[in-house]
Order: sequence, then structure tokens, then C-alpha cells
Amino acid sequence: MRIEAISVIPQVFEPYVSSSILGRAQKAGVFSFEAYDLREWTHDRHRTVDDAPFGGGQGMLMKPEPIFEAVEDVSARDAVRPHVVFFSPCGTPFTQAVAERLSKKERLLFVCGRYEGMDERAYTLADEVVSLGDYVLTGGELAALAVTDAVVRLLPGALGDEMSALDESFSDGLLEYAQYTRPAEFRGMCVPEVLLSGDHGAVGRWRRESSLRRTAALRPDLISSAGLSESERALVARLLEEEKESAGEGGAHGQAL
Amino acid sequence: MRIEAISVIPQVFEPYVSSSILGRAQKAGVFSFEAYDLREWTHDRHRTVDDAPFGGGQGMLMKPEPIFEAVEDVSARDAVRPHVVFFSPCGTPFTQAVAERLSKKERLLFVCGRYEGMDERAYTLADEVVSLGDYVLTGGELAALAVTDAVVRLLPGALGDEMSALDESFSDGLLEYAQYTRPAEFRGMCVPEVLLSGDHGAVGRWRRESSLRRTAALRPDLISSAGLSESERALVARLLEEEKESAGEGGAHGQAL
Repeated sequence: MRIEAISVIPQVFEPYVSSSILGRAQKAGVFSFEAYDLREWTHDRHRTVDDAPFGGGQGMLMKPEPIFEAVEDVSARDAVRPHVVFFSPCGTPFTQAVAERLSKKERLLFVCGRYEGMDERAYTLADEVVSLGDYVLTGGELAALAVTDAVVRLLPGALGDEMSALDESFSDGLLEYAQYTRPAEFRGMCVPEVLLSGDHGAVGRWRRESSLRRTAALRPDLISSAGLSESERALVARLLEEEKESAGEGGAHGQAL
Repeated sequence: MRIEAISVIPQVFEPYVSSSILGRAQKAGVFSFEAYDLREWTHDRHRTVDDAPFGGGQGMLMKPEPIFEAVEDVSARDAVRPHVVFFSPCGTPFTQAVAERLSKKERLLFVCGRYEGMDERAYTLADEVVSLGDYVLTGGELAALAVTDAVVRLLPGALGDEMSALDESFSDGLLEYAQYTRPAEFRGMCVPEVLLSGDHGAVGRWRRESSLRRTAALRPDLISSAGLSESERALVARLLEEEKESAGEGGAHGQAL
């Protein structure tokens, strides 16, 4: 996959996309990443990318011309037209399902705004507008990095183990189960015994129950669309009942849920 | 505000927090940022921070010991105890309201996981666990950066103009209105005439209606909690009706909505 980004602070991408899993995936040829400085497509001495909003108001808006020129120029650098993604709180909320859909594209081009926003006409260049969540960031760069991260780890060969991405939060519509590593006892906190038992069936059942329990407790909104079986729905109802009776246990992360 | 982060890739923070608005805010003394390498708190030759999960499964988990030592050590470096934030898809969804709440803290300490997750016991260190959204990232670093960005821009003096943060998406529970800058006509697309009129009352009404219209069209889930007046609720109902009749117009970002 070819991923590119247009930004006024192109230097913020490289340290992240060359680290850790993304760095290894780039070296393995799973994807390539390039960031361009929007100011390359300005024509004045000050390399101006922003201007005051019509109708008054605070802050500066990004001008349409450099964005149009940049997107058109970068798009034409490859025979494959990129899927162009803009970022805005007004966009489609980004979810794992969106990441999976984007992971099927050959080429992604992210256009990152800064300042108070962009001239509305620039958005006509977008194949889609994505929102990272219901909060305001100073620009689209972190959104572009988060989408890159979430998408790349779904590409074949990106994770060390081909199966890893199948076994985590949202892959089955639920939050992931609680996990433990050595030592078995740490500062008085013990790993659940079943995980030390070597009984794979029991471990599997405990994990599914942990996943159901914490999803029911922490994100009940996810339960209805998780496609649970009749017996799992009954289990969730029972777990929620138990939960109510022992309210207050569970710790900050639903520890031991 | 003092913000710190613990991570196995501490080098990814500095380019972002020293750029643009965050960079200026740091220089102005609005906040300080420091990232620590979790491996500083390991004691073996290989500086091991991860281990295999009990009960089997793919991938590696972050061990509890270095995380406990790091959080305790960093916390003790200042008389003010930090508010400790972990990141996980199982956490509380991050929203602008959470950003506003966190912006009142004197000191924030972000603990960023990598690998398949963290030993569950580590989360007992957290004052809260935050989720950036319903998607899976390879680590907490981008979440820590996004929270830093969203929080810092709310601090007094962070934005050039004190008022800017009051006049944008979510500040009133709605998406922000469409904005335009020069030129008034660009590639056949014209700025709405009212914005060129100089009539501030009319501009204000147009913007409120733009805000209501796009929220109703793109994020109807936000409308019910936005605290609209009786007449605005009627307006939204009418806008949605018009919307239905002219379905398909509006462009990728609800252009001209």
C-alpha cells in the first residue's frame, strides 16, 4: 500500500511511521509512506496557506488553492489514483470497520488541515472525510497517523504473527479479554488460576467470558451489535446482574473483569 | 501544566509537541512535555518490557514490573502527584468533555502500551483509562499525543486568540458551520453571498443554521443533547425535511450545508 500525506508540518510523521511495528512493516515492503509540505504548492514569497474567514471571526482558514494544486499534483504521481481522505470533526467517525475498508485500498492520500479549519470548497476533493472522534485537535496530522497505524496493522505481513489482528478488541465486536504475563503473583495480585491450568478449553471459555463481561460493564452499547448467541446473551444478562450486586469492584480498567 | 509520557518509543513525541500551536504554547510556558523510555526501568541486559501471555495466545504483553517502577519513579519527581492516564480500547471514550476535564489538572502522566496489550494488573496504577475511539492502534502513543493536543489547546494562552476554542465543533454540542476564505469564487464555486454582505446579524444566523443543518445531516446523534431552543428544534425538523427532498446534494463534507 502506498500512503501519502499533505501537511504544513510534514516532519511529524516520519518518527512515528519509522518506529516499532510500522517501521518494520515499511522495511518489509508492506507499505510506503511519504509526507509532503503543503507550502510547496504556494506561489508567494511568504508561502501563505491561510487567510481570514469571510464573514469575520477568529483564527485563520486554509486557502483552497494550495490544497487543490497539492492533491492534483500528488495524485498524478502514480497511475493508481489515490483514495483521498480529509479529516474533520464533521466527518464519518473512524472505527475499526472503516480501518478494514481503507486497508483494501491500493493508495491513500491524507490531507491534513491546520488552523481553524479549511475553506469548505477544499472538501470537494475528498473521497471521504473522517473524524477521529468527538474532540477537537489542532490539525489532521494525528488523525492521519492514527488511520495509518490502524490500517497498516491490518495489512498482510504487518504484524509479526499473521493472526494477531484477529484476536483483539472490536475484531469480534467486543472488547478484548483481560491478559496476564509473569509473574503469577505481583504485589499481592494474582493471575486467575485458570490461565495457569494448561486447560485450553477452560482458558478459551474464561477469555470469552472476560470479553463479554467487560464489554457489558464498560461498553454496553457494543453488545447489541456483537452478534451473540442466545446462550451468550443470557450469560451477559447474568453477568450484568452479578455486576450490580458487587458494584464498585473491578478497578480502573475493570481489572479482573 | 506539566505533561509526561512513558513509552518504549519516546522519540515519537517531540516532533509533534514542538510544532505549530503546541510548540508555541510550550515556548510560552503554557505547558511542559517530557517523554521517558520505559526501558529505563528494566533491570536485565536486554531491557525486556514484554513477556508471553499466561494461558497461551499470540503476541507479547507488557510486563507489570517496569510499568509500576516507572510510574512510581516519575510520579515522585514532583510534589504534585500526576493524574495517571492509560490508554486502551476498553477505556472511557475520549470526548471534548474529557479534554475539558483533563485541562483542569496540574499534572498529567500518560502511560503508553505497545505489543498486544498490558498485563491487566498494570491498569491498577491508572486514575483513568481512556480510549481514543473504537479502533485498534499499535500503541498508546498517538492517543497520548491526541489527548495532549486536545487538552493543551484549551489552556489559557495556548491559542493565539483567547476565544478561538469557544467557537468550534463540540463547544456548543454541534458541528462547526461551513467556513470560507478568499477567493470569493474558486473554480466555479462561490462563497455564500451572506458572508460577503457585512451584515453581522445575518452572518450569525447563517452560521448557526449551517451548524444546525450539518449536525442534523451528518451527526443527528448529537442533536438531542445539544440543548437547542424550541425554535431551533423546529428549524432542525424543517432542515431535515428539506434535506430529504434534495437528497444527494451536499458533497463529501456536506459542502454548503
